[in-house]
Parts: sequence; C-alpha cells; structure tokens
Amino acid sequence: MTIVAGIHAVQEFLRTTPERMLKLSVQRNRRDAALAELIRQARMHDIQVAQVSREALDRMCDDVAHQGVAARCQAFQPHSESEFEALFATLENPFLLAIEGVLDPRNLGACLRSAEGAGVHAVLIPRNRSAPLSSAAFKSASGALSSLFVVGIGNLARRIEWLQAKGVWVVGTDDQADTRFIEHDYRVPTLVVVGGEENGLRELTKARCDALVSIPMAGRVASLNVSVATGVVLYEGVRQRES
Amino acid sequence: MTIVAGIHAVQEFLRTTPERMLKLSVQRNRRDAALAELIRQARMHDIQVAQVSREALDRMCDDVAHQGVAARCQAFQPHSESEFEALFATLENPFLLAIEGVLDPRNLGACLRSAEGAGVHAVLIPRNRSAPLSSAAFKSASGALSSLFVVGIGNLARRIEWLQAKGVWVVGTDDQADTRFIEHDYRVPTLVVVGGEENGLRELTKARCDALVSIPMAGRVASLNVSVATGVVLYEGVRQRES
Repeated sequence: MTIVAGIHAVQEFLRTTPERMLKLSVQRNRRDAALAELIRQARMHDIQVAQVSREALDRMCDDVAHQGVAARCQAFQPHSESEFEALFATLENPFLLAIEGVLDPRNLGACLRSAEGAGVHAVLIPRNRSAPLSSAAFKSASGALSSLFVVGIGNLARRIEWLQAKGVWVVGTDDQADTRFIEHDYRVPTLVVVGGEENGLRELTKARCDALVSIPMAGRVASLNVSVATGVVLYEGVRQRES
Repeated sequence: MTIVAGIHAVQEFLRTTPERMLKLSVQRNRRDAALAELIRQARMHDIQVAQVSREALDRMCDDVAHQGVAARCQAFQPHSESEFEALFATLENPFLLAIEGVLDPRNLGACLRSAEGAGVHAVLIPRNRSAPLSSAAFKSASGALSSLFVVGIGNLARRIEWLQAKGVWVVGTDDQADTRFIEHDYRVPTLVVVGGEENGLRELTKARCDALVSIPMAGRVASLNVSVATGVVLYEGVRQRES
C-alpha cells in the first residue's frame, strides 16, 4: 500500500487509475472547491471517503505536503523483466529510459513525469540503486506512474547488453562527454540512460554505453537537475523522431 | 541575510561568490571529506567557520535538508529594472526568461538552474507573483543565482510591452496552445514566459504574448514540472540559435 498526497497528485491518480485507490481521507472542516471535487469523483468511483483531523493527515503523509487530502492506494508494482521482454517484442522502434542511482524520491518522480510526457515505451530502474517509489515519488510523478511501463531491473549492465544484442543503441548522459546531446541520433531504437544527482552514471554503466552525451552548460553551474536533463534529452529524441 | 544549506549548494556558493558568504556552520563531530573540503575553502576565503550541534543547524535551516552544513550569506538582491535596461542595451540578440507565478521556492530555484544552464541573459521575476528567493530556492538553484542576472519586475505586462517595442518576440508556454514549442523561431530576440505550477500563465499575460506554444504530452499527465518545461523550451532555443 502507498499514500498519495496533495490535491494534484490525488486528482491525477483518480483520473488515471481510480480502481487502485482504496480510501480517500480529507481534512475535516476544510472548505475548498478542489477538495469537494475530489470527494465527488471518489464517490462516483465507489471509493470510501473519510473526514479526518489535520494531525491524522500529517501522520499519514510524513513530510509530504498534503494540502488537506491523501489517499491510500494499492502500492505501485514495477513490471518484471520477463514482462518487459514481452512488451519489447511488440515495439516497432523502441524509445526507452533507464534511471540509475537517483536517490531522492522527488527527483525520481520528476524524472518519471518527464519520461511519461515524452512518451517513452518503458522506464528501467535498477532495483538496488534507486530511490523507492514512495509517496513522495508518487507525488512528484504527478500521476505519471499510472500510465508508465516501469520495470524493476536486477542487473542493468546485463540488461543493456541484452538490448544491444536486439539492436538498441544505448546513450548515456555524462557531464564530461565531448558529444553534445543534440548531435546524437535518436531515430533508431534507443535507450537513454541517466544517472544520479551527485555522481551521474557509474563507470561500469558508462563503459557499456554505445555513446555518451552532455548537455552544454552556459553558466557556472556544472549540471542540470536530473529530471530537467531527462526532459531535455528525451524531448530532443521526440523532436528527431517526429521530423 | 539568507541561509544556504546542503553540501552542493554551499560548495557552489563558495565556488562562485565566496565574498557574499558571512559564516559557515558545520555539524560538530561529523567526519566527512566533503565537509572538510568546504571548511578548507571557507578558511582560504577568510570566512568564519563554526562547529555547531545538529539541532542548531536544523533550526537554522527550517525544513531544508542541510547534510551537516549551512552558511549565512548576504541576501540575494535582484537587479532593478533600470539596471536591466542598461544590460539590455548591451545585448546583441537577447535571450530572456520571465517566470510568472511559480510559488514553490524549490520549483523557482530549479527554473533558475535550468535558465543558467541554457545561458539566458536575464530572468525577469514579478515581485508580487513569485515564491521568495529563499534558502530553499537557493538550494535547488544549486549556485545558479550567483551568476544569473535576475530582475525584480513591478509590472510584467508593461515590461513585456517595453520589450516588444524594442523588437523582442515574446513567447509564452500554454498547455492548450496549438503551436508546438519546436515550431517556434527563437533565433530572433526572444523572451520566453513560463507560468506557475497550478494554472500556468495569467490570461492577461497570455494576451500580451506574440505567440503561445505547448510541449506535447504523450501520456496521460497534462504537463511537465515547470522547471523541466523551462529547460526543454530554453534548450530548444539554444539548439536553434547555434544551428
């Protein structure tokens, strides 16, 4: 089970996967048009609605700002690798993302939101080098988790090799790379690999990539936030694939 | 005065504007190579260093995760509009950003980091419709504030008119716009205007824009995080301007 908190996150969850919402909790005595609308929608889907104290909501949500609303939902289960292999077999020109070592759940959620917007077919997340898909991740994913195909990966290096053998080009992001991200060709079957907040991709992962690309930084700051970098690279892929 | 908290934010602040750091506070009894390096750098710049308790740091930083380090720094002062006009007169082909109504300081900071990476000449922020440039904004800006030209704007609509009279094309982001962001021409003098987390740009602001563009969303989520949208649009501008 997981907690989805905040008006926007609950709204998106209700809009996309209401069947996975078990119970909606709303802060007592709070009058708010957005909350009223959420209650109406929950009832429409036969979801139990409870009026609770602000303190009860605070406890339910840990440090996530709940804006007077939170919902208990079925926990998010990433797909297995064999499910991914079945999906992969159906893809005409795969456009995939792997997220390695993003340790802040909010950053992970924001990366997933970027990936969902850009329309990647699946997101690969190493099981042991990633933030959990917690309620904070859910909130910043803003509903993206309900429609993304997320895969839990045991060994990313091995999965990269498997993809390469199937004709996928693997491009990793690396601040130090000489090739700029706009110089890369994403029109072929592609896996984009992005790395964690502090150190980026592991050396082992970089070594497996067919190409490494950087995003030019015009100022003094060394890198973009990982969810922004993910969005910028993926949307360049979208641009090329459509033109 | 403002508080800059967290290893990365303090590091970037020390690297870019050490003269504005007044005092560095480090958690007592915490042994950490990154902290030791920050202390060394602070001493090199004759900045006072204090060893304090974890509780004192917690109080100093409110809800910002400090990782054992925080610094008191001179508050960030946005430039005045007359300073902006002086800068503007020196620009050959202006590339500007306005951020309207972004109310979460972390989102604002992340937008500024995206803007700094993309190399915009100035960022316009309406004084009365924006999150404060607080320590949370500083932290997620990750040092960008020290090298960005940020301008506090009294009346954004009037400033847009002023820029238009000077030959600047004003393009706003709007989820509902028919024109996609890659169809717009950013090679001319350009102001990109992005709007807040919930409702985007105000109608009044949209009406002033020469063009409105949207970022295509392939999935079910309606929009990208505002800092990601900012990065995606600005880097398309960079791509066009360089090609």
